[in-house]
Amino acid sequence: MGFLEILKQAVDNVKGGIAATIMAKDGIALQNYVKESNACDMDSLGVEYGRILEEAKNASSLLKLGEVEELSVSAEGTTIIMRLVNKEYFIAILLGAGGNTGKARYYLKRAAAGVRKEL
Amino acid sequence: MGFLEILKQAVDNVKGGIAATIMAKDGIALQNYVKESNACDMDSLGVEYGRILEEAKNASSLLKLGEVEELSVSAEGTTIIMRLVNKEYFIAILLGAGGNTGKARYYLKRAAAGVRKEL
Repeated sequence: MGFLEILKQAVDNVKGGIAATIMAKDGIALQNYVKESNACDMDSLGVEYGRILEEAKNASSLLKLGEVEELSVSAEGTTIIMRLVNKEYFIAILLGAGGNTGKARYYLKRAAAGVRKEL
Repeated sequence: MGFLEILKQAVDNVKGGIAATIMAKDGIALQNYVKESNACDMDSLGVEYGRILEEAKNASSLLKLGEVEELSVSAEGTTIIMRLVNKEYFIAILLGAGGNTGKARYYLKRAAAGVRKEL
């Protein structure tokens, strides 16, 4: 399955799913998928939150809490869940208000495994 | 209910609960509670992750995703969940391997409301 297919499956299967991205840690997207055309710019989102993920990795290593696997940020109307694919790439999904976070985490984990196989 | 009581209730009611903190955004703890004496240093943890929370708030505002409410980081053996109490304070809980994240989020939300009432 191609990268776009993997992202499409994760977003379209989750209530409230808006968009997803596979991104290198330097902030350059390998693949984006945006379901709703009015969604926010996935490239900017990936860059900003990719930086936060890197900082969380550094903090976790400094505090000896183990390797970071997932990071999620819930705001008033949106939730972003990011998951490490490998040392170079991460995958992220954006949900709107009332999005199903549990299901998103499940599909994101599957999608990360799918991407890992393709890389 | 005092701050220590609020933290104790959140940690002791959740499977895998290790510690919790109420912290100002400048990284100074108002109250810590550590259930397991071998747990990691809550002050350092609060400072490091408090900084990440601040960056998530900035990113969310920049990307117009709404006000950040919760941030969680899952690593191999630990999960940290942070929740904003108000503009000045946040509350965080640390779970060990196999911790019940769903329950932790529920109790953290209750605890944040409790702290808000006391401040």
